[in-house]
Amino acid sequence: MVSKRVSDIETSVIHEMSRLAGMVDDPAMLSWAKPTTGTPGHIDEGAIEAIQKGLTSGYSTSQGLPVLREAIVEKLKRDNNIEADVSEIIVTVGAIEGLSAAVMALVDPGDEVLTPSPNYSTHIQQIQLANGVPVFVRTVEEENFRLDIDSFKQAITPRTKAFLFCSPCNPTGAVFDEDTLRAVADICMDHDITVITDESYEYFVFDGNRHFSIASIPGMKEHSVSTFTFTKTYAMTGWRIGYMVAGKEMVPQLQKVHIPFAICAPVVSQYAALAALKGSQDCIAEFGEHYLKARNLVCERLDRVPHVFSYQRPQGSYCMFPKIEIEGEKDSLAFSKKLLLEGRVSTTPGVAFGPSGEGHLRLTFCCPEETINKAFDRIEEFYPG
Amino acid sequence: MVSKRVSDIETSVIHEMSRLAGMVDDPAMLSWAKPTTGTPGHIDEGAIEAIQKGLTSGYSTSQGLPVLREAIVEKLKRDNNIEADVSEIIVTVGAIEGLSAAVMALVDPGDEVLTPSPNYSTHIQQIQLANGVPVFVRTVEEENFRLDIDSFKQAITPRTKAFLFCSPCNPTGAVFDEDTLRAVADICMDHDITVITDESYEYFVFDGNRHFSIASIPGMKEHSVSTFTFTKTYAMTGWRIGYMVAGKEMVPQLQKVHIPFAICAPVVSQYAALAALKGSQDCIAEFGEHYLKARNLVCERLDRVPHVFSYQRPQGSYCMFPKIEIEGEKDSLAFSKKLLLEGRVSTTPGVAFGPSGEGHLRLTFCCPEETINKAFDRIEEFYPG
Repeated sequence: MVSKRVSDIETSVIHEMSRLAGMVDDPAMLSWAKPTTGTPGHIDEGAIEAIQKGLTSGYSTSQGLPVLREAIVEKLKRDNNIEADVSEIIVTVGAIEGLSAAVMALVDPGDEVLTPSPNYSTHIQQIQLANGVPVFVRTVEEENFRLDIDSFKQAITPRTKAFLFCSPCNPTGAVFDEDTLRAVADICMDHDITVITDESYEYFVFDGNRHFSIASIPGMKEHSVSTFTFTKTYAMTGWRIGYMVAGKEMVPQLQKVHIPFAICAPVVSQYAALAALKGSQDCIAEFGEHYLKARNLVCERLDRVPHVFSYQRPQGSYCMFPKIEIEGEKDSLAFSKKLLLEGRVSTTPGVAFGPSGEGHLRLTFCCPEETINKAFDRIEEFYPG
Repeated sequence: MVSKRVSDIETSVIHEMSRLAGMVDDPAMLSWAKPTTGTPGHIDEGAIEAIQKGLTSGYSTSQGLPVLREAIVEKLKRDNNIEADVSEIIVTVGAIEGLSAAVMALVDPGDEVLTPSPNYSTHIQQIQLANGVPVFVRTVEEENFRLDIDSFKQAITPRTKAFLFCSPCNPTGAVFDEDTLRAVADICMDHDITVITDESYEYFVFDGNRHFSIASIPGMKEHSVSTFTFTKTYAMTGWRIGYMVAGKEMVPQLQKVHIPFAICAPVVSQYAALAALKGSQDCIAEFGEHYLKARNLVCERLDRVPHVFSYQRPQGSYCMFPKIEIEGEKDSLAFSKKLLLEGRVSTTPGVAFGPSGEGHLRLTFCCPEETINKAFDRIEEFYPG
């Protein structure tokens, strides 16, 4: 009785591993992709004030509160170099709802959607929900999972409708640089391929890498749907609030999906998001410093177990994607389960992240340093060199 | 570049009329389907306390907070006679996200979904988003839009996958009685058709009518996805919080859609919902009394303009669906626009609600009595008898 589209989607390995982690005594968690800290106090206060003023009972317009969209327009101009009008913004239930809406609005059954491999597993499922066909584009692992432009070109067919990617990348930590994205933009404009971006980790980039928004390229806003979220930037995971920006002609089409999916984003969260944009931005720098230190620590600890993992140093996000180096243990699901159940370290099997994900684990470093040290102490004990 | 599935969906007449209403000086609004009052104070307080305790930063499990699901299980047993386990509940972004997820989880491209006509316009769009085919089942208008069981049987084909309905009904105010729903259940179990319910207005029924949940019939929980919301019951529109209940085998399939759509429902709203279920239920009775009085007033006023409208007395919800009686003015969109722009009364054209909706208007009476009187004073002036 279940639809084929949904029965074809495998039960999330990520959620299966979470369930298993619940059965282990005090596991060291390198598998959560959520901010280490709680929501900053001034953002909570913004939400509380809005509730007390009676502003949170009723619907907002389905595109979101005008005052919030105005603040988003300013942010897009200042930080992303994207020129947008308030009418080109839709506030969404996290970036995730925007991504689902964008895929539904662009992809008909059988249409192909290019996406890098490895990529965030949920993106792949969103394509499947629209009865689209994910077509994986090779990334060059040894060059920090760089997107290979030749492979990208070769993957295009007459059915290619969209290119969906996240940069900074979950799970690899890759940051696609401006040159790469300009090349992608040229190709997509030539072939009338719409770009769907997930820019959730936009503020967390390291070592002089820079986040570049493809919609900042003249003409590209009309060829893209760019999604953003407050989740990572302001540690607002539970509030479920994000937004997307697209060209004027696309917005009414996106609305036809956004309304049946959600009507509007939660209004209390819209006021929290407004407080986030209007208040001090210091928390972003603090979070960034924390993630940088955590990244450096994970890399140091990985350097001590080269017989277990090789790795690319993440350029951004708070995820990384080391390769399993133990002969006979390259099955990522079996390895991850063993490491959890016998070694008490929780990771995510790479197989969840597309065809080239096998043989890898995703590690996240959005956690306290003691968690990282505990995890690697256990790995060193479990796999003595 | 837009998908056919989405370009085939017409821009919402409801939203177009909202836009027009914004251009009229002080229109009398009989077109909003949202509660008259704000969220009760104790529910706001529940949300504020959760924020202050730092409980709203992080994700909940994707199915929702266990403590909230426990309270929902109790409510379903007490008020709906549905026996469910906490593992059979998914907390959603209003009922609307649950409905979209249910349709996506059941319907493959080309599958048919039975739905009454008239029906809530968004339900029709949700079927289209899944590339399903809405198949409209006749209701008997002169018998209060009763579902016609013979028509229901005749509409079934080998491609019929689901039956999607709301009772109490938006837009007609019909309440499908227990006998009708037991007949529907028998037919659906025989033909392996899954029932998807929208029970948003469950507490607002009048004149001794009773709301009956089809999932309370033994065996039917496994053949249905039942959606509910806090929106109408507790005047929590902006919080975007609802839930669905389904059989044990269906829940993991629904999760495969719910996660890519939303990850989890907004956590602050989950705590508000918990306060709603745990606190005084007096507000429900108060809202119900208000809607009953408002319904009676609308009917009294309609009785004075029989040359303009005939109508069925709504049995529930806060919507009704009078028929236009003026010769030459049966085009509901033209009539509704004229009534708005020249008569300054905002209504919703019946054409939005399925093929048998034409020639009708939807009126909502979730408004202060003075709004109803103002609207009908204007109608009487505009169409003197």
